[in-house]
Amino acid sequence: MKALRLKSWKSEPELEEVPVPEPGPGEVLVQVGAAGACHSDLHLMHDFEADHLAWSPPFTLGHENAGWVHTLGPGVRDVEPGQPVAVVGAWGCGSCGRCLDGLETYCERPDRAPVPGGGGGLGLDGGMAEYLLVPAVRHLVPLPDGLDPVDAAPLTDAGLTPYHAVRRSQAKLGPDSTALVFGVGGLGHLGLQILKATCAARVIAVDPRESARDLALCCGADLVLAPGEGLAEQVRDATGGRGADVVLDFVGSDETLAASAASVRMLGDLTIVGIAGGTLPVSFFGVPYEASVQTTYWGNRRELVEVLDLAARRILHAETTIFTLDDAAQAYRDLANGTVRGRAVVVPHDSYQP
Amino acid sequence: MKALRLKSWKSEPELEEVPVPEPGPGEVLVQVGAAGACHSDLHLMHDFEADHLAWSPPFTLGHENAGWVHTLGPGVRDVEPGQPVAVVGAWGCGSCGRCLDGLETYCERPDRAPVPGGGGGLGLDGGMAEYLLVPAVRHLVPLPDGLDPVDAAPLTDAGLTPYHAVRRSQAKLGPDSTALVFGVGGLGHLGLQILKATCAARVIAVDPRESARDLALCCGADLVLAPGEGLAEQVRDATGGRGADVVLDFVGSDETLAASAASVRMLGDLTIVGIAGGTLPVSFFGVPYEASVQTTYWGNRRELVEVLDLAARRILHAETTIFTLDDAAQAYRDLANGTVRGRAVVVPHDSYQP
Amino acid sequence: MKALRLKSWKSEPELEEVPVPEPGPGEVLVQVGAAGACHSDLHLMHDFEADHLAWSPPFTLGHENAGWVHTLGPGVRDVEPGQPVAVVGAWGCGSCGRCLDGLETYCERPDRAPVPGGGGGLGLDGGMAEYLLVPAVRHLVPLPDGLDPVDAAPLTDAGLTPYHAVRRSQAKLGPDSTALVFGVGGLGHLGLQILKATCAARVIAVDPRESARDLALCCGADLVLAPGEGLAEQVRDATGGRGADVVLDFVGSDETLAASAASVRMLGDLTIVGIAGGTLPVSFFGVPYEASVQTTYWGNRRELVEVLDLAARRILHAETTIFTLDDAAQAYRDLANGTVRGRAVVVPHDSYQP
Amino acid sequence: MKALRLKSWKSEPELEEVPVPEPGPGEVLVQVGAAGACHSDLHLMHDFEADHLAWSPPFTLGHENAGWVHTLGPGVRDVEPGQPVAVVGAWGCGSCGRCLDGLETYCERPDRAPVPGGGGGLGLDGGMAEYLLVPAVRHLVPLPDGLDPVDAAPLTDAGLTPYHAVRRSQAKLGPDSTALVFGVGGLGHLGLQILKATCAARVIAVDPRESARDLALCCGADLVLAPGEGLAEQVRDATGGRGADVVLDFVGSDETLAASAASVRMLGDLTIVGIAGGTLPVSFFGVPYEASVQTTYWGNRRELVEVLDLAARRILHAETTIFTLDDAAQAYRDLANGTVRGRAVVVPHDSYQP
Repeated sequence: MKALRLKSWKSEPELEEVPVPEPGPGEVLVQVGAAGACHSDLHLMHDFEADHLAWSPPFTLGHENAGWVHTLGPGVRDVEPGQPVAVVGAWGCGSCGRCLDGLETYCERPDRAPVPGGGGGLGLDGGMAEYLLVPAVRHLVPLPDGLDPVDAAPLTDAGLTPYHAVRRSQAKLGPDSTALVFGVGGLGHLGLQILKATCAARVIAVDPRESARDLALCCGADLVLAPGEGLAEQVRDATGGRGADVVLDFVGSDETLAASAASVRMLGDLTIVGIAGGTLPVSFFGVPYEASVQTTYWGNRRELVEVLDLAARRILHAETTIFTLDDAAQAYRDLANGTVRGRAVVVPHDSYQP
Repeated sequence: MKALRLKSWKSEPELEEVPVPEPGPGEVLVQVGAAGACHSDLHLMHDFEADHLAWSPPFTLGHENAGWVHTLGPGVRDVEPGQPVAVVGAWGCGSCGRCLDGLETYCERPDRAPVPGGGGGLGLDGGMAEYLLVPAVRHLVPLPDGLDPVDAAPLTDAGLTPYHAVRRSQAKLGPDSTALVFGVGGLGHLGLQILKATCAARVIAVDPRESARDLALCCGADLVLAPGEGLAEQVRDATGGRGADVVLDFVGSDETLAASAASVRMLGDLTIVGIAGGTLPVSFFGVPYEASVQTTYWGNRRELVEVLDLAARRILHAETTIFTLDDAAQAYRDLANGTVRGRAVVVPHDSYQP
Repeated sequence: MKALRLKSWKSEPELEEVPVPEPGPGEVLVQVGAAGACHSDLHLMHDFEADHLAWSPPFTLGHENAGWVHTLGPGVRDVEPGQPVAVVGAWGCGSCGRCLDGLETYCERPDRAPVPGGGGGLGLDGGMAEYLLVPAVRHLVPLPDGLDPVDAAPLTDAGLTPYHAVRRSQAKLGPDSTALVFGVGGLGHLGLQILKATCAARVIAVDPRESARDLALCCGADLVLAPGEGLAEQVRDATGGRGADVVLDFVGSDETLAASAASVRMLGDLTIVGIAGGTLPVSFFGVPYEASVQTTYWGNRRELVEVLDLAARRILHAETTIFTLDDAAQAYRDLANGTVRGRAVVVPHDSYQP
Repeated sequence: MKALRLKSWKSEPELEEVPVPEPGPGEVLVQVGAAGACHSDLHLMHDFEADHLAWSPPFTLGHENAGWVHTLGPGVRDVEPGQPVAVVGAWGCGSCGRCLDGLETYCERPDRAPVPGGGGGLGLDGGMAEYLLVPAVRHLVPLPDGLDPVDAAPLTDAGLTPYHAVRRSQAKLGPDSTALVFGVGGLGHLGLQILKATCAARVIAVDPRESARDLALCCGADLVLAPGEGLAEQVRDATGGRGADVVLDFVGSDETLAASAASVRMLGDLTIVGIAGGTLPVSFFGVPYEASVQTTYWGNRRELVEVLDLAARRILHAETTIFTLDDAAQAYRDLANGTVRGRAVVVPHDSYQP
């Protein structure tokens, strides 16, 4: 089969012919219907070196995957060939406390996982290929009626990550509260949709680009603002002086983190989602009292079920541009050039082929 | 009546004769049974200047107070003269959302509070006097049977602050979890007792002083450690590699915060209680995933009810050294010299005098 | 001033001339802008006798009130004459643990409340008059911009009660869950709106009346059903066999409670809101495992703030029919005859008159 | 190997020779170190008939099991032969939402489970044998250091069930609260220990037997009472009139349920653990406002980890009487006659035999 593979650090991926994997006990072979091309893959191609991560090339790219169950390894029950599924991307050991709680992103026995701190497309072969070997049936979520792999694939990361971030703050998002979203890009605009769908908080979106602010308004933002010196004051003005109960920083630079800390309400949540590499100095008098500062990373299976449910009901939608597997390398080049509209999705199979 | 008053910033307090206050509508005059001398009062005497705070001298010191209801202002019901009470120290506006939720420490209309961000002994006259004027009956908590003002007074701050910090993390303190306490001083040793009383987490205490580590063991710590280079590794070793689910930093210096961040578990809580002035740089990869970093400040009325309940049942105990009101200035001098055993408590009245 | 008063049990109310009250310390006199006529008032007129309740006539009717602050008693701060306010209806002692948590509906010292287990219009003089004496400023919620007393008044009960019921189940109302609403009447149709506004659960509404089911669809119900023998099966069919995560029974008869128990999911919530007098026999094998069966009664101040916020943003709306104070008795007759469209609201003053 | 098997409904179990099972893909063969004899097994022998349950004899008894991993089926990782383990008893489908949340007791696809609504000793072969076939590695919990299979086995049900019941009410068990335990038998006395270990609530225990009340005092009960007419009043007296925040009914008869409802506080929890077959009629005015009435059944893997942690630390202890496998039938006869001290535990192997 064909697969788009990263052969070494600091290189462009190449389309190669590789054998179709055979599923062992407990494993499942998925026929790939769609694999999202994610910005973080560009980091994999360009920014890492040996020893930066616990795993290394060669492997097939693609960590946002959906398709159809194709072949079951021995002992696998509960799914059947032809069934459309999305793939939960973080593959932990499956037996530590965190994994048993469904939090495989935070597996505490990475030495026992298929690869430490990774998954398909992240150290192991991913979905930019005709078939994807999934090491356990628990990583598969059946697609709800009316949702196809092309729509589902990008949501396994770009939808799941903001969903996880929003859910951590659910208790602080009552009707009389305000959520602030920094950065209305691929994840941010889905975060806005998720906020509007799951709570009655007012939502303020901040982005320097006018087009992004327009997109935010389309996604239901109650107020859009441009970043800059007076931002925190504008947020305080719009919230009766209180500040935002929940700030989701989808950028994560020094500047956005500082503005987030200046905008958050006492007892609020400041969640760092974006990995622009910024640092926030936290001290007793430097951040509003009891504002909880934390990072968030991807999400879990139960949350993906909920994301897909929202998508199947047309409450959550990611725009996509489709590429063939032969054009997958081009998808990444377009992504790097900023010319893709919405999420770039590579489609190896249009429909299930037994 | 006599009162120990701070007359100006950067000065020692003086014992003066002042009029007994008259309670207005809704107010209550309390006969002071005990007023704790708190380290933070030393900061008031020595470290602040005009414009640092929203309030300023002169005022009577003492923000850890208990005594007996003496005189009721017009319209006050529900308490009666002679009733022993503790005083909740943070006096907010009483009508913003936070105050109505009982969180007067985080009042969002400080301009409407009796003093912005303060209370008795903090901008308004406090309990180092024969009588204390309390601006609303909601600031009074009846003492449970068997608890007298001398035992109750220091708990209104030194017990309430760690209690509030522990309660924020209650959901993360199951039997298979670990709490780490940095600093076994006045607040820390009460924090240890509170942890042991309210959950089944293992507790590790860290302090450079051997005597403090011995005290920690007396308070039920499962393990005591000295700070230093290998600390985070020792904590990881003692927790099966996971780290501490909850870290309570009662010091709050650069060093303890860095060690806290190195010791906390993914998804854990890192709570800054101490005000040594340190800063923790928080970034996406600099702190374990989803560890929540936040400050905490004092506590609320409902929590004080629970603290006093624990104390009345002899589950929580603060050692005290008693001073007369005439010796109150000496109490602070001893405190500054580090020669007080336990909490210094000033006792203006031994019992209720109608 | 004029007031519509219940003079004795088992009687019709009468419009009388009574003195305008004088607010004492801590009290506030409100100029009534609107007072809702509630079905439960018909019970007061017809169904109760001496000893049924802890209070008795004569008193002025009207427990759903909004208007403008008129006169402040001594010691009252934080509100000012002319300010539009809604009135929280349950008036507890204000000093027991429940009241201090804001749960005055569940006051545990009713002997110390203005009237045990009641409030204005419930044992004490209510809002069917030109002025209403409110015993404490904490019972007043400032109206948000854009919401007038006529819209606000009925929400203080008909909006607050379903809101409180929905909020108790918030954690069970994720996107992949289902809420079932029994009874699409005055409270039920607001409950539907609240569900749609505050969560992403699917909502099923059940009512025997086709017009009510149409109203449910207008309020956003995803599915409407008529009650009857196959109901529980229809609910199971619509939920993949699981049942409804949350059932809100706004009727509360034997029949609806039995159908609720048959429809609820294991680990779900079954909340009894309606007071039709039914009983549900709960036994180990008679109700799905761990389904929580409980009643709910009215709501609290913080929740009313949130209800009014939703209303001011036009997310929540109760239709109203307006009556003058002279026609107030007629409003109740129309209510008894079922000829009122939406909520009957009595309007003593059109605007603030200093 | 030898196995104590129930051959048909309404019969005594018989010791038989059966083949040692072979683990298939994903399965694990456990060498049984201890199997608890549970009262509910007496119900299996005597009270059920065909069609009462979704499964039927013949099968080997024993659903409280611990031992050592012996043989791994294909694809099993993360455990190794000789490792001491406890067995989580409820075996669900493993792939429905509830199972993926760890709640296999409430599996919503029982048709896909190894047996619908059962597990080893409940429709499938259990632990009253030399070896036990466990269908998935997720059902195994490694024993913490210092805990052997004999101590662990009875805790997998008699410890886990009350633990699950206590944890559901954790948020209502602050220091100023009261828990009421009905029935100080096998589960109840462990429930008492769990309450004392995990929270600071006061605990009241109710049992008609003086010996049981003495046991309750040994387990840390703050107050013991005998059931009878004045019970609810005694509970109200002991709680300042409020009632018990949490009532755990380990009996579950009409009488104890009625007394539970009369004793529970408004907003409290009333949890039905015991299966004596009683019914509680719940109506709007028949149970204190917002008291949550629900059943509870067994517990999950994460909770078992916590139970075993408490036991390894000697905070939780179940007394046991040991029987050989040859005497297993006698163990049940003694259990039926009430002559067993503590839990009867059958020990097929004293130590691991490779």
